[in-house]
Amino acid sequence: MNHFKLRHKILSEKIPDISVLLFSGTSLSRNYPANTYPFRAQSHFLYLAGVCPEGSYFLLREGTARLFVPEVTLDDIVWSGMPESAEIIAERSGCEVHELSELPEYLKDIAAERLASLPHSEASQNNILSGALGRLPSLENAADRRLALALIEMRLHNDEAACRELRRACALTVKAHMYGLRALRGINRGGGYGSESDINEAMLDPIIRNGGYVSFNPIISTSGERLHQVKLGENLAPGRLLLVDFGAESPSGWAGDITNTWPVNGKYSGKQALIYNTCLRAHKECAAMLRAGTEWTQVHGKALAVIAEGLQEIGILKGGSVEEYLEDNVISLFMPHGIGHLMGIDVHDMEDLGDLAGYAPGRERSKKFGWNCLRLNRPLAEGMAVTVEPGIYFIPELFERPEFADSVRKYVDRERLAQFLEVHGVRIERDYLITAGGSELLTPDMPTKICEIEDFMEQTL
Amino acid sequence: MNHFKLRHKILSEKIPDISVLLFSGTSLSRNYPANTYPFRAQSHFLYLAGVCPEGSYFLLREGTARLFVPEVTLDDIVWSGMPESAEIIAERSGCEVHELSELPEYLKDIAAERLASLPHSEASQNNILSGALGRLPSLENAADRRLALALIEMRLHNDEAACRELRRACALTVKAHMYGLRALRGINRGGGYGSESDINEAMLDPIIRNGGYVSFNPIISTSGERLHQVKLGENLAPGRLLLVDFGAESPSGWAGDITNTWPVNGKYSGKQALIYNTCLRAHKECAAMLRAGTEWTQVHGKALAVIAEGLQEIGILKGGSVEEYLEDNVISLFMPHGIGHLMGIDVHDMEDLGDLAGYAPGRERSKKFGWNCLRLNRPLAEGMAVTVEPGIYFIPELFERPEFADSVRKYVDRERLAQFLEVHGVRIERDYLITAGGSELLTPDMPTKICEIEDFMEQTL
Repeated sequence: MNHFKLRHKILSEKIPDISVLLFSGTSLSRNYPANTYPFRAQSHFLYLAGVCPEGSYFLLREGTARLFVPEVTLDDIVWSGMPESAEIIAERSGCEVHELSELPEYLKDIAAERLASLPHSEASQNNILSGALGRLPSLENAADRRLALALIEMRLHNDEAACRELRRACALTVKAHMYGLRALRGINRGGGYGSESDINEAMLDPIIRNGGYVSFNPIISTSGERLHQVKLGENLAPGRLLLVDFGAESPSGWAGDITNTWPVNGKYSGKQALIYNTCLRAHKECAAMLRAGTEWTQVHGKALAVIAEGLQEIGILKGGSVEEYLEDNVISLFMPHGIGHLMGIDVHDMEDLGDLAGYAPGRERSKKFGWNCLRLNRPLAEGMAVTVEPGIYFIPELFERPEFADSVRKYVDRERLAQFLEVHGVRIERDYLITAGGSELLTPDMPTKICEIEDFMEQTL
Repeated sequence: MNHFKLRHKILSEKIPDISVLLFSGTSLSRNYPANTYPFRAQSHFLYLAGVCPEGSYFLLREGTARLFVPEVTLDDIVWSGMPESAEIIAERSGCEVHELSELPEYLKDIAAERLASLPHSEASQNNILSGALGRLPSLENAADRRLALALIEMRLHNDEAACRELRRACALTVKAHMYGLRALRGINRGGGYGSESDINEAMLDPIIRNGGYVSFNPIISTSGERLHQVKLGENLAPGRLLLVDFGAESPSGWAGDITNTWPVNGKYSGKQALIYNTCLRAHKECAAMLRAGTEWTQVHGKALAVIAEGLQEIGILKGGSVEEYLEDNVISLFMPHGIGHLMGIDVHDMEDLGDLAGYAPGRERSKKFGWNCLRLNRPLAEGMAVTVEPGIYFIPELFERPEFADSVRKYVDRERLAQFLEVHGVRIERDYLITAGGSELLTPDMPTKICEIEDFMEQTL
């Protein structure tokens, strides 16, 4: 069975009394209406209908899925050429295909409270959608919320087709990272003249050739302590670590997401190796916990505990026990983000719904620094895809903030810390699928251990 | 004098009774709020203040230009690192720099009818701006319209700094095309296995390394008759022409825009050469007309006339004179777009203002097919930057449309036309600056003649 058809069936069974109207969206304007960013359809739409002409609507009503696509004009033919035929779109999407002008006919006798949709993040798209929906979509609306919850149940459990897409996006992501590592080796061999942008260029190469896109704006930085620094262009100074957080998106919209932290000149210094190996130990211990039933907060806590232990051994934390560093939360100064997040057709899957997908019903974001960034707080379940991404960062400004002064005075060896500022930041991120027996690494064949990375950097081109 | 300061002075003198409030804009969401397209500020903002932190406001009041930039939060430091200092932003932008919280203080005693702004193309940005402006920006508003007209006067005449930026963007555009041509040669040498996406990848290479962006979504197509076909990925079939319409944007936001039409396997066929040389002749004759005072409609008419003459010689048009092909407008079936457009900080400069910049006061779009696509209808003036881009296309569907049936029957030799469908489409586009004496080619050193392109394709790597 076409996997979209299967999804239509399951969704219809979950909310049989509700009709679902989704809007693919249109291209967003970059500087004037005709100059747009590359089009990307809404994720819920992609999940239920796949890639379609922009400006299309999806209607699921009484078990029947229909697509309404814009009429082809003379202008379309001249400027874009003939679009795909209705037959091809129908075959791929598992939907009946109609012209957009027919949509009102199919909507007219649906009671308002039985017609559900989901909001886009950009106002312009909701304005267009409201024309067909008769109101703005909103998670405060009872029908929209029921639709959101039904789709969350489905998308949390990646079906067979979703797993195939994730493996494809992750393989492309690994490939991009290998291109990046190879480029770094080339720059190092060539005398070290290169910048973060050169690595970006190398990593985008296979993505662009594949007709894909990045699943988020790449972070490629020798200042890894800036967690989401997306400005590129710094020179690759020898002796620095390069933190590369980069994900590919498959042509059908699914995401991969990997972070590597590589030594610019091919060898980790003693201090870099100490921090890297602590981070890697945290990664491994977290990965070993991945199975249905594990609480994500426990995985986050495990990462903090392993890192606390490591920093104590290194002498940066002192004067307490691992339990005390966690209790006091001084450890979050070194890892102020969550241990990972859901991944799917969005790289932070379903974050357009706020915390409705990431947080189990009744749970709310913690107020604690670091913990407040946890994007996931649910027990793991079979079919979920998650990232595991412990990091250790030395963010000088944090240690000067008055709100952390007590903790820093009590537990941080400032002299030892000062020696490690030069490490900046390390993060090691991989993607996993929760399986019946535990988990599947979605991003295999990526050098991860120090010896693997150094060996690769040493090999001849 | 800092060139932004100079612009502030000129704008203040043009509308001394009006205060100007512009919003840089914020990143647009791609699939959920935290996952955005790369940020690009509004062009009018870039013109007056340059690259600034997103979410900034520009206020020009009584001759003094001030920037209001968002406050730095703990989150900013952790996630993005310390932003540029106010001193650096002030030095570069020629503005006093303030924190965003101070903006209301500076706005409070400006009478509503004396505060002008300009609309963004995305609703979400106007919603944010309306918070400070007290209303939505609109060209229907008298103050906003006066601001628009004042900025149009300034931006039509590119100042010294603007010309520098344009030369830089155009040089980067030429470089990208040379990378593309080299990649095409490599693919041809390597046995011909490659796709449109491979050329895209090669052309993006210098752009990405330079930290720039494309000025519009690239058109790289072996179906050149689809004027703005932005889907990529077709294989580069030997014997086809590859139409490449690709522009770089400089890091400060200025645009270049070039089209080349190259033979996939290095040699133009006889038919391809006939069409290419006709297009090139049209280009040259149009370029020779570029000087202050020339009406753009005359340039458009010249392109159509040269192409009509060429198609008559080739035998595709028959049964009439060049004047009749123009009068009947059958010629526009072969070039259904305008001969060129303004170029500046937008690739279609100021198209966010509709036709207010492109069309002289009192002029309106023609209703005639092809002519209705003319984006410019003004006499040329010193300082204007324009593209010249004649094209010849064989769009099979057009010759079957009932609205053109009479013209086709009367003037088109269908048998001869059928022989040329395989040429698909040719376009040759270069960028020019109108100078005191005539024009300056902004995009030199780009192989253009058939012999130059074939020679390049023949050279060893």
